[in-house]
Amino acid sequence: MLYEINEKIIKLEMEGRKIIKLNIGDPDQQTPMEIIKTAINAMKKGKTKYASAAGEMRLREALAEIHEVDADNIVITPGSKWGVFAVMYLLLSKGDNIIIPSPHWTAYELAAKSLGVDVKLVKTRLESNWEVNVEDLKAAINNKTKLIILNNPNNPTSKVMNEKTVEKIVSIANERGIKILSDEVYADISFVKTKSLLEFEGEHIVVRSFSKTFAMTGWRIGYVIADKTLTDKIVKLNQITVTNVPVFLQEAALKALELRNQIIKVMRKKYQKRADLACKIFLDTKLKFTKPEAPFYIFPKSEGLNSETFSFNLLDKGVAVAPRTSFGDYLEHFRISLTAPDDEIELGLKIIAEAFK
Amino acid sequence: MLYEINEKIIKLEMEGRKIIKLNIGDPDQQTPMEIIKTAINAMKKGKTKYASAAGEMRLREALAEIHEVDADNIVITPGSKWGVFAVMYLLLSKGDNIIIPSPHWTAYELAAKSLGVDVKLVKTRLESNWEVNVEDLKAAINNKTKLIILNNPNNPTSKVMNEKTVEKIVSIANERGIKILSDEVYADISFVKTKSLLEFEGEHIVVRSFSKTFAMTGWRIGYVIADKTLTDKIVKLNQITVTNVPVFLQEAALKALELRNQIIKVMRKKYQKRADLACKIFLDTKLKFTKPEAPFYIFPKSEGLNSETFSFNLLDKGVAVAPRTSFGDYLEHFRISLTAPDDEIELGLKIIAEAFK
Repeated sequence: MLYEINEKIIKLEMEGRKIIKLNIGDPDQQTPMEIIKTAINAMKKGKTKYASAAGEMRLREALAEIHEVDADNIVITPGSKWGVFAVMYLLLSKGDNIIIPSPHWTAYELAAKSLGVDVKLVKTRLESNWEVNVEDLKAAINNKTKLIILNNPNNPTSKVMNEKTVEKIVSIANERGIKILSDEVYADISFVKTKSLLEFEGEHIVVRSFSKTFAMTGWRIGYVIADKTLTDKIVKLNQITVTNVPVFLQEAALKALELRNQIIKVMRKKYQKRADLACKIFLDTKLKFTKPEAPFYIFPKSEGLNSETFSFNLLDKGVAVAPRTSFGDYLEHFRISLTAPDDEIELGLKIIAEAFK
Repeated sequence: MLYEINEKIIKLEMEGRKIIKLNIGDPDQQTPMEIIKTAINAMKKGKTKYASAAGEMRLREALAEIHEVDADNIVITPGSKWGVFAVMYLLLSKGDNIIIPSPHWTAYELAAKSLGVDVKLVKTRLESNWEVNVEDLKAAINNKTKLIILNNPNNPTSKVMNEKTVEKIVSIANERGIKILSDEVYADISFVKTKSLLEFEGEHIVVRSFSKTFAMTGWRIGYVIADKTLTDKIVKLNQITVTNVPVFLQEAALKALELRNQIIKVMRKKYQKRADLACKIFLDTKLKFTKPEAPFYIFPKSEGLNSETFSFNLLDKGVAVAPRTSFGDYLEHFRISLTAPDDEIELGLKIIAEAFK
């Protein structure tokens, strides 16, 4: 259905229709100009050559300081998605399985399928505040389970995991010798305190990104934090695949880190405002939802809804949302991405609300 | 030994010694300023968002026109190396084997190992003008052979393959239903006519790059040309791994294509001059070599040489070259990369020549 929806968007736009796109998690904001300027200067200075497959040492050191690890524990990757894939490629074999709380980002599942790895989804529910049932997760583990993927804060629910739950999952994983990969790309700009997996016991893996925090999605730069044995393997994999992230982009990322506190403050405030607006507009509708604790999404539910048909038909009213297709078995849910210009978001949300009055 | 050599380079440089680096194939020239300016403008215009995993249509169309294929046959990749890896990842399974004429670029072999794929090297010799013996290649094929990798022009020999030989290999591959991957990253600036594999019969695969032709190594942008079935698969793999090459870099690549004839002329002339100089300087030495037919390398041989010890010791004289380690079973050979500033190259070559007087 995703295909049909995308085709319809293209068709409508070609007919001159304006579509408010709340279907993709790509910030409407521009990358801050100081970051762009740094990239430009680096380019002009000839920072356009082959470079370390681990990433530039200055950038790795700056990240190491933020995360209180060693630079050896950091590898710069062309996006956090490459980090996720690299970890799965290196740790998993055909026939292994991984466990993912659902709803979940589709890329984890597609990467697993591509590697011949089975996926065991542990379903969470809006009615239980999207809490992971640790017993369900435990029951899903078998001797072929090699990895648990947590996405904290979560896409599409924008829910931050309960610390006690994470602690229990970590303890199970440590007991069974299973690695956890924690995708924390929304953590920097979450509205509530989000404890990184790095702060828990055990040698686990964290992926982070510059994409969401600094509106740098199309720059393709993220990083993996892991034990040196694994980061060394990722570096070797980078050497035979992507080589390195362009140095001029890495210098821009370093500038982003310098401006980090200031940018995070602005971004968080902007997204918090949008999340509040969505909650307000949906308040007197039939939509059920949990209040977003992080950017950019809201994942409402309407009893009995077929979100695929709904999303397809909603396009006629000029609004695009993502049906459940991409996030697991959640036919009554759809995902709204609050990443369009503010006026478009407001109009889009009102059109959606109208359908559920 | 490669590790020890790199460590020694770092150590000597930290001691303040100047090392002429003829060991890495990274052009000393800067990326032409018009290309950089285009990237800058695109960045400033906000071309910093998620984009197509196939690559920008305008760039694909421009490349399609150059190579006389459809845009559907082109996928933009973060470097040609990712293209090579993606093709191997998608076409090969554990236990399959691939055939590579040797000497060869080490990345092919490392990628194969990473995928659990066996490599069968078909050795070529300086004394036979680096000609691939088609009977040897034929003998190496078995029912597990899924891919033949040609690197034409070749790194490290800078030799362009004989067209008749390519024709014979293609004919064998077509007969046996084996795909050929032709890595042609040096073809645009080769000194002699280099026929692309695209001009031969059968549905084979070509990888190309902007790196060497336009001095854009660190930009990480290349492309794969293949049948639509395969390019579709690469696009899907991109979607779950690298996502897309930054659009501002793709716009710069499009500008590079506009300036293509002009830049190629300048680059080719520069490298031809350097190759001629190397041949001249080595003329009255004990070194045997074939005249380079393409940039950037020369791969001389000295009877009885241990190129690893030689390369290690040569550093004391201030020159770095690549020993045979990286290219296969060629202990008497070493690779010189003519990619340093002209005066350094001349001095470096003279120091090397001195050792073989």
